[in-house]
Amino acid sequence: MTDRLGSVFIENVQPQLDAGRYAIKRIAGESLTVRADIFKEGHDVLVAIARWRQVTPAAQQTEWAEVPLTPRSNDAWEGVIPLAHNGRYEYTIEAWPDLFRTWAHELKRKVDAGRDVKSELLEGAALLEGAAARARDVSVEDARTLAEAGARLRTPPSPEHLLVALSPELADVASRHPDRGLASRYDPVLEVFADREKARNAAWYEFFPRSAKRDGKTHGTFKDAEGWLPYIQKLGFDTVYLPPIHPIGRTARKGRNNTLNAQPGDVGSPWAIGAKEGGHKAIHPELGTFTDFRAFVDAAQAHGIEVALDLAFQCAPDHPYVKDHPEWFQHRPDGTIKTAENPPKRYEDIVNFDWMGPARDALWKELKSVVLFWVDHGVRTFRVDNPHTKPMQFWHWLIREVQDLHPDVLFLSEAFTRPKVMKALAKVGFTQSYTYFTWRLFKDELRTYLEEITQPPVADYFRGNLWPNTPDILPENLQNAGPGAFRLRVALASTLSSVWGMYSGYELCEGRPVPGKEEYLDSEKYQLVAWDWDRPGNISDWIAKLNAARRQHPALQHYSALRFFTSDNERVLFYGKRTPDGTSTVLVAVSLDPYAPQEALLHVPMEWLGVKPEETYQVHELMADQRSLWQGPDVQVRLTPEQPAAVYAVYRFRRTEHAFDYFE
Amino acid sequence: MTDRLGSVFIENVQPQLDAGRYAIKRIAGESLTVRADIFKEGHDVLVAIARWRQVTPAAQQTEWAEVPLTPRSNDAWEGVIPLAHNGRYEYTIEAWPDLFRTWAHELKRKVDAGRDVKSELLEGAALLEGAAARARDVSVEDARTLAEAGARLRTPPSPEHLLVALSPELADVASRHPDRGLASRYDPVLEVFADREKARNAAWYEFFPRSAKRDGKTHGTFKDAEGWLPYIQKLGFDTVYLPPIHPIGRTARKGRNNTLNAQPGDVGSPWAIGAKEGGHKAIHPELGTFTDFRAFVDAAQAHGIEVALDLAFQCAPDHPYVKDHPEWFQHRPDGTIKTAENPPKRYEDIVNFDWMGPARDALWKELKSVVLFWVDHGVRTFRVDNPHTKPMQFWHWLIREVQDLHPDVLFLSEAFTRPKVMKALAKVGFTQSYTYFTWRLFKDELRTYLEEITQPPVADYFRGNLWPNTPDILPENLQNAGPGAFRLRVALASTLSSVWGMYSGYELCEGRPVPGKEEYLDSEKYQLVAWDWDRPGNISDWIAKLNAARRQHPALQHYSALRFFTSDNERVLFYGKRTPDGTSTVLVAVSLDPYAPQEALLHVPMEWLGVKPEETYQVHELMADQRSLWQGPDVQVRLTPEQPAAVYAVYRFRRTEHAFDYFE
Repeated sequence: MTDRLGSVFIENVQPQLDAGRYAIKRIAGESLTVRADIFKEGHDVLVAIARWRQVTPAAQQTEWAEVPLTPRSNDAWEGVIPLAHNGRYEYTIEAWPDLFRTWAHELKRKVDAGRDVKSELLEGAALLEGAAARARDVSVEDARTLAEAGARLRTPPSPEHLLVALSPELADVASRHPDRGLASRYDPVLEVFADREKARNAAWYEFFPRSAKRDGKTHGTFKDAEGWLPYIQKLGFDTVYLPPIHPIGRTARKGRNNTLNAQPGDVGSPWAIGAKEGGHKAIHPELGTFTDFRAFVDAAQAHGIEVALDLAFQCAPDHPYVKDHPEWFQHRPDGTIKTAENPPKRYEDIVNFDWMGPARDALWKELKSVVLFWVDHGVRTFRVDNPHTKPMQFWHWLIREVQDLHPDVLFLSEAFTRPKVMKALAKVGFTQSYTYFTWRLFKDELRTYLEEITQPPVADYFRGNLWPNTPDILPENLQNAGPGAFRLRVALASTLSSVWGMYSGYELCEGRPVPGKEEYLDSEKYQLVAWDWDRPGNISDWIAKLNAARRQHPALQHYSALRFFTSDNERVLFYGKRTPDGTSTVLVAVSLDPYAPQEALLHVPMEWLGVKPEETYQVHELMADQRSLWQGPDVQVRLTPEQPAAVYAVYRFRRTEHAFDYFE
Repeated sequence: MTDRLGSVFIENVQPQLDAGRYAIKRIAGESLTVRADIFKEGHDVLVAIARWRQVTPAAQQTEWAEVPLTPRSNDAWEGVIPLAHNGRYEYTIEAWPDLFRTWAHELKRKVDAGRDVKSELLEGAALLEGAAARARDVSVEDARTLAEAGARLRTPPSPEHLLVALSPELADVASRHPDRGLASRYDPVLEVFADREKARNAAWYEFFPRSAKRDGKTHGTFKDAEGWLPYIQKLGFDTVYLPPIHPIGRTARKGRNNTLNAQPGDVGSPWAIGAKEGGHKAIHPELGTFTDFRAFVDAAQAHGIEVALDLAFQCAPDHPYVKDHPEWFQHRPDGTIKTAENPPKRYEDIVNFDWMGPARDALWKELKSVVLFWVDHGVRTFRVDNPHTKPMQFWHWLIREVQDLHPDVLFLSEAFTRPKVMKALAKVGFTQSYTYFTWRLFKDELRTYLEEITQPPVADYFRGNLWPNTPDILPENLQNAGPGAFRLRVALASTLSSVWGMYSGYELCEGRPVPGKEEYLDSEKYQLVAWDWDRPGNISDWIAKLNAARRQHPALQHYSALRFFTSDNERVLFYGKRTPDGTSTVLVAVSLDPYAPQEALLHVPMEWLGVKPEETYQVHELMADQRSLWQGPDVQVRLTPEQPAAVYAVYRFRRTEHAFDYFE
């Protein structure tokens, strides 16, 4: 920075998050389009570039590189930074006046006006000689070109001299060696984190491996869970998420249906982590050994499935930490350790860390080592339990520390809380976030909410992972509901967002609640469950078709591609997605009515499709596997509880040299 | 700042400008409403305050003060900072968890659930004792109250103890002595500049004092100009702006109509500043002496009029600076000083400073002394000539330096250039700005542009001063136009913005152009002009009525109060203004057609007026001085070239104890 800082104004740099306090998110292998307003008083010709470098992981750190920005209308400039690899990048913008081009531009206007430009040519010579001096160490050829051109301008002027002075080629050479001492640089340096693709494109399936025996009586093992994988693969999921797999506390263990006094044989909540067998770095003995776990991870991978673990930073009273590190926990004045509570609710089987207490540094370091421990055991995705009850700055620190070493590690924030707190967790680093989708049932509220979270500025840092159910939440709309409700909610979740998930049993339309609550009766959180995959009324085929559509049509793999369109029926939602390169286009109509058929007139967005009103185009409806030829914007659709969604892949016809062909 | 920084999130602090890089603007005597999103993980009760202090002028600097913020919905908080005095203020936001209230809140829920709270009471005692310790140096009484309450909680609990612990009075006392070590403070500190009221509410009249003899032949003096003041007062203006009053260069002086060879007796352009008689700190001898100038300023003040001077930082080749400080100017390679140019245009009578050259510091200091010189001679308002051709950082520095000493000094930016450059000048400190109003003629473009500049975020730093004409600009719509065009444009300027101005001759409907250009024929910039105030067809009465309406109706004095409403005729613009306290309301309908009568159905905004649909209300149309009773939203209006604007002061009837009364 020189004292000329600010001679060029660089404003409104986009994207950025909270004045650069947090990183925005993108996907590795894609690119980052940066925009800024760049200007200066007067009429100087400006040059602007984006500077960028990869900073993590350390092994992939690069030098600063530069890409040109191009002026658009009204002093707005734009350029593209490539994000080839998974990791953290820095970027900023620099701009300076192009003295030689400015001079040449004015010279031309003077020559056109017939003015004597003798003195101007000497100014040009000085500019070229300055550029030649700067070029010397970089390009001998450029230096010679510039020096010779400068010398020619010092001889008495002639029409030929003017042609040389005004040639675009000479300006290009001179601009390659600018006086960067005149540059303004945008402050602060901004950050972007390039995640691997699964950060944005994944279908999660949650199940309890202890139920993998599927008889509701015998404790399942990782080996049994391997037997679950072909079924999950058939459903089309690519991520399985396991609730905590650690030893479960015995003190104050919860019984079936969250009762306070566990009976002998009750398995307890896996979120009550830690017993004499170990804590967050141990495996519940009944699930198997580390060898078994690794075998399960490998088997999953062989089925194209990644294993995600739960990260629940809390302890059962029996957790070894409690005895070994009492200083990590909150104590009452009488010296006892506080159990978790949210009055009047108490969680007697759980004690909380003293996050900001005097032993904070050691505690945080230990918890980081927990994450790295499981990373070493082949896990790259974590679903984080209740992050909104722990300090935001802990997550900011933890996620950065882990991703600095392992940029491929993903964190899903399981926060169902106030909107700004959910967003803040995404800002401090969570890769994906649970959402309010679970409670958004009708057209306006779905559209408003999905537009909010899938479009910038929120989509620059927040990726909504849509879940119709979780082990904690059986929403009212799925309680004792027929398969129509389950079909429509899963169709919405899997096509509105590029990342979605469901908890096992959903495909069987399991919907028995604790009366008056949004909780499962006989919840798997407290007992083994006998899952019958072939239970009558199951919607496994429907789910498999949706996941297949997602795999085959890249449009559905893009998070911010979502656009809503018009249907004339309030109970039919109509939307679409299109890849940025336009090679994949999908339209989706979903009935929001689980009880009765609904008809709607859809208004197909011809301009967005790039289809002319008189043009015939083909759609392939993927749920019923039916192709049609459409023309014009008006399409009538009938949706039923049995078939509540239509997912149309759209193809335009293309005339090739020899025949008609179509392409997406 | 402690290492707990960030335990409370403070986001989205409003208003602020470019992450606090520049000050926002308000008016002294009013207040600043600040808003922020404030939250923390978990369920702590939070306290938030705005911290503020006046920092300039030095004599009025204050200590940091605090005002409470109040929570609104969705984690948004709001508070009001008083800006009693003219000057610069700093403000920021601080928030912390209220540990005692959090404790009391949870205690109540536990008590309600029938839980044993013995241990909790001990925690409460510790919190009270901590507060008592902090209170000791501040309030002996509070310290005693807190210590006693703490002690009571340590004795065996009783229902009475619980009542004490949960009393709102105790919480109030404890909250007065919080542990601020837990506080988060927003970074950066933001700035607001509180201008005196004329920054936002003024009517400018520009005239050349050298034409004050009004015969077109004899050079006028300040004494003659005093004779112009009663007329200007009658027109209702409160600011007169004089083009540069300094000695005019003789070298390359421009002749009449901007010709290159001045004839003997040609007076030259006053913007070619400087001759052997002096430069920016001298007065053109033919205008008079410093005594005469001061007498003129005083006479103006006696007429309720403030004198504004032109600040044109450029020199005629004869300016003493050129000889005394050649290092302040740009030179050609042959050693001559560069004259100003914008190819193919040349300004041979002007040379430019080398703003960023090696002598920059001395040059800037000298130019600052020019401003302070005229401040010492009673001038507090400057119209700055072509600021967009000088470095933005110079203005940022100059305006701040001057206003640190004299916060009442106002700067009007005379920049007609690209939109972002005009806004940047306002950001770096200009009090008011010229606008594109001059070229906005039709309904949509007027509405879009005025909404942009009169509403936040632009209105937080940009105040558009609307001019239908200037000595440099006779827009096409006023060329050879009838009085209808002049009437309608002045009605728009004076009611759309709270600050407007016009150049003399407008009231006489002077509209003879240089053919094909937006310039005046026989421009006063290069010659004396014989102004006949009683010229037939003049619209002085019309202008006087508009300015009188502005004085009598505070709604018209508020810049951001503007709202547009519906008229069913594209050629009739309908809008209104209302003071923030609702005590003054004005509606305005203006025909945009200077050629023919226009009728329109106006849709009066009943809800905005606060009038019920069935209620009768009174309007006083100020241009024709006619009162009517209206009811409901539909009003038919007929506007003509003779009477192209209707300005309605709106009154509601109010029932008093004894009779009907009305109030604004």
